[in-house]
Parts: sequence; C-alpha cells; structure tokens
Amino acid sequence: MSHLTTVRIAGATRAGRVDGDEIVLLNAPDVGAVLRTGEATESGERVAFDEADLAPLVAHPGKIICVGVNYLDHIAEMGRERPDFPTYFGKYREALVGARDDLILPDPSVSTQIDWEAELAIVIGRTVRNVSTSAAIDAVAGYTVINDGTVRDWQRRTTQFLAGKTFEGLSPLGPVLVGTDELGDGSGLEIRCEVNGVTKQLSSTSELCFTVADIVADLSTILTLEPGDVIATGTPSGVGAARNPPEWLADGSVLRCSIEGIGATENRCRLP
Amino acid sequence: MSHLTTVRIAGATRAGRVDGDEIVLLNAPDVGAVLRTGEATESGERVAFDEADLAPLVAHPGKIICVGVNYLDHIAEMGRERPDFPTYFGKYREALVGARDDLILPDPSVSTQIDWEAELAIVIGRTVRNVSTSAAIDAVAGYTVINDGTVRDWQRRTTQFLAGKTFEGLSPLGPVLVGTDELGDGSGLEIRCEVNGVTKQLSSTSELCFTVADIVADLSTILTLEPGDVIATGTPSGVGAARNPPEWLADGSVLRCSIEGIGATENRCRLP
Repeated sequence: MSHLTTVRIAGATRAGRVDGDEIVLLNAPDVGAVLRTGEATESGERVAFDEADLAPLVAHPGKIICVGVNYLDHIAEMGRERPDFPTYFGKYREALVGARDDLILPDPSVSTQIDWEAELAIVIGRTVRNVSTSAAIDAVAGYTVINDGTVRDWQRRTTQFLAGKTFEGLSPLGPVLVGTDELGDGSGLEIRCEVNGVTKQLSSTSELCFTVADIVADLSTILTLEPGDVIATGTPSGVGAARNPPEWLADGSVLRCSIEGIGATENRCRLP
Repeated sequence: MSHLTTVRIAGATRAGRVDGDEIVLLNAPDVGAVLRTGEATESGERVAFDEADLAPLVAHPGKIICVGVNYLDHIAEMGRERPDFPTYFGKYREALVGARDDLILPDPSVSTQIDWEAELAIVIGRTVRNVSTSAAIDAVAGYTVINDGTVRDWQRRTTQFLAGKTFEGLSPLGPVLVGTDELGDGSGLEIRCEVNGVTKQLSSTSELCFTVADIVADLSTILTLEPGDVIATGTPSGVGAARNPPEWLADGSVLRCSIEGIGATENRCRLP
C-alpha cells in the first residue's frame, strides 16, 4: 500500500498518496474515507510533501481508543504492576490536530502540567467483531504516530483518565499511514519522543506488553471495529510526569514524536 | 420544544416530532441532525408512537461521555468517597440501541455480569467551549433516558472503566428528547429502573452530586461540546453488582428505565 496522508487545501481536507517528495491528491476527504470506501481515484493535483498543511490523518474517526500502561519501562516508571489485561480509555476527535499544527496549550489557570506520550497508532481497515488474535492483523490498515496528549493533573483528578486525555488539540495524528504490507504486526519499530531536540522517550514497539494483535482481538470482543477507527497503543518510559523534577510542555516547546518507517509529528506549543 | 424522536423506517432512520399518540416524520435522518442544522421541515408522514421502531435517539453522536459516581446513594453502595471532581469515562456509539430494541447479551463465555444503570442523559444543542456554570443550560437541547449498560467484570479488569462500559448494544438511548423549556436544569425528576417489573433503582435527579450545569461547564473546559453530543449523568443506588448476592441481567430479563417527564426505555435481554 502507498503511504496515505490527509491535507488541508482550499478550505477543506483531502486524502493524498505520497509519491516521492510530493502528495498526489485523491478524490476523498481524508484517509478515513479512503479506508471506508476501499478506494479513491487520483485527481491529478499534486502538492509538495514538506510544505503540505497536514490535517489529522483521520479527520472523523468513529472512535479513538487508547491503551494505557502498555510498555514495561513506562509501567515501572509510573509505579504500576505488569497488567493482566489491557487498560483502555477514551479520546475524542476534538483532541486531534495535524502532524505539523501548533499545539494550543490550555490556559495556565486550567493546567500547566502538559505532558507528552509518543505512541504507535493503529488505524483499522476492515469491519471486525470477535476476531481471533491470529487473524487480527488482517483488520489493520496500517500505522501512524500519535502524541497521546495528556493534561496530567486532570488525568489524576479522579480514578478515570479520560478528563486529562481528551483535552482539545493536544494530540497530533500523522503524518502518514503506512500499511501492514510494510510494517506487518507493528513490532520492532524504534519509537522516539524529543522535546526541543532532546530525546525524552526512546524504545521499541517490541516492548509492548499487549501486542497490536492482542489489542485488536480483545477490543473486538467488546464492540465492532470499523475502518478509520484509531487505537493508540500506549507510551514508553520518559514522560514528563515521571521525571525528577517533573517536566512539562510550555509556550514555545517543540514536540517531535517519531516512529521508524512512518515518520514524525512535529508541533510547536503555544499559549492561547 | 416539541418532543423529538428517531425512528427506523424503510431501511433508514428518520427524526420525528411527537404529536399526541403519533410521530410526524421530519426531513432529517435523526435527532442529532435536527440539532446540528437547527431545524427540520415536516414530511407529512405519520406513524403511531406505540408501534414505532425506535432507533437510538441520536444515531451518530460525535461523542458520548459518561459521568460515574455521581449520586450520593450510589457512591455509598459502591464503597466510594464523595468526589471533589466529576469522574468521566467514554462510551462509543456501537453501545447504543433503540429504546425498545432487544439487548443482545455477550456470550456467557465472555461475561455473565451484565448490569443496569438507569441515567438521565443530556443532549447538547449548541456548540460551546469554556462555558460558565450559569450559562451552561443554554447549551443543552434537552434530556433523554439512557441505560449505561455495564459488563461489570470487564469494568473491573483494570483501573479504567471503559472496557465494561462500551460493550456493543447494551445501552438503549431514548425514547424521546424533552427540551429544557420543559425540564429546565434537569433537577427534581424521579428516576427509576425496573427489572422484570421489580423496582431496582429509585431516586431523583436532585440527588446528583454534580449537576447538569456543573458537568456541561466542566467538560467544556476540556473540549468543545457539539450539538448531538450525549452526556450520561450517572446512576443512583440499586445496581446489580451492589446487591447481596449480586444480580445480573440474563436471557429473557426485561429492563425498564424511566425518568419523570421523559418516558421509558424498555428492552428484553436475550442471548446471541
């Protein structure tokens, strides 16, 4: 599968196929629409990849499900035990921004504890329910990068993480979708998070406690997964909250999350 | 505002306005679409309310957010402390069914701990962000009934409730939307849950720790609320898990959730 992306152009979003250093625009509003319809014709229009105004890779995912406590190193730093089951929490599409957008931080009176969490994101390609682990990868279209943008004090206000995980505009998703034909089961990929050029997280997707196949199979026991659904698979060690002293994103911080074979999101933080 | 509903007819869904014992069909696919566009013309077609095949009141809500531990009596029975902040968790639209649909229980090998949670559901009517508590009710279109269908052992597998809260097809939403012109701030309404004709939950929405206005204002600090978004406000005491011995919904159980001034969802449970 070609690498797919979603760009903003002429006041709307458009799906595109990456062709060298250009993007060939497709006759579909976003990658989610391409996956739902299974195909998209080419429009003939091209834009330069490096200059493209990237939108969230999937503009309107039917659902975004996040997995927590899923890297052994992150489990240790957060003081948790190795889990028996995957931990799931929600995120809504208002949290998403493009791979190069500014991250508009909450007003400091709301929170200053803005944390990073670089993650491998699964994008579903086929409708499935009750799929077995061995068949689960067939339901995956491919992978992209997400920052599971976290407002740490709001995450910790109650027992449930959702409030701190779905703040508006803190979760870049992109830059491209790379298929399972290239990345297989999603294991063995270096994952890195840099803040202002300093590496804060560095691990491998082989460190996942629950693999991509485990997660897709387990979630499909709960509900139907649909093309365009996004699943964030958890983050490795090195988040700001676990540092001594804690570190947070602030006005002017540049956050870069990258995964081998996919690319990077790179976003500048600024105050409202 | 008239009472609005969503029915299935001729292989699609249609919004409708309740007119006595009939529903006047509107030229809109569901109540969510009516709220998003702000109006809908009447088609002239009518169906009997009692015989209508009710769909989930909002077919494709942009988000469904649930509030937990929000009735003082339920907080006591679950052994929790009175909270300082509202507890939020997610639910996805695959969980929704119509107010009269069968609830297809998970296969017993997956879980037999199927619990009820009758709740007042807020339906958002206006796009808002950072709204004050005093202005929050202006963003509410009205109210309906939801069963926050819960698979209790899956809810308790990890620290995060989501897995047990978004099982497919266990959360009826309806039967009608009743506006704030009738129900105001949503307080003072009797809420009841019956299983096989026996009352299991009976309380008043005045027992909410965090009121409708509190919840809408607080959520709007996190992200934009949009017309058609659904917020389940929490459940009173009397859930099956807190009974001694615990009680669960099973094949043939009839679950009825009702709220004064709105109406009732009534669903028969059956095995797949």
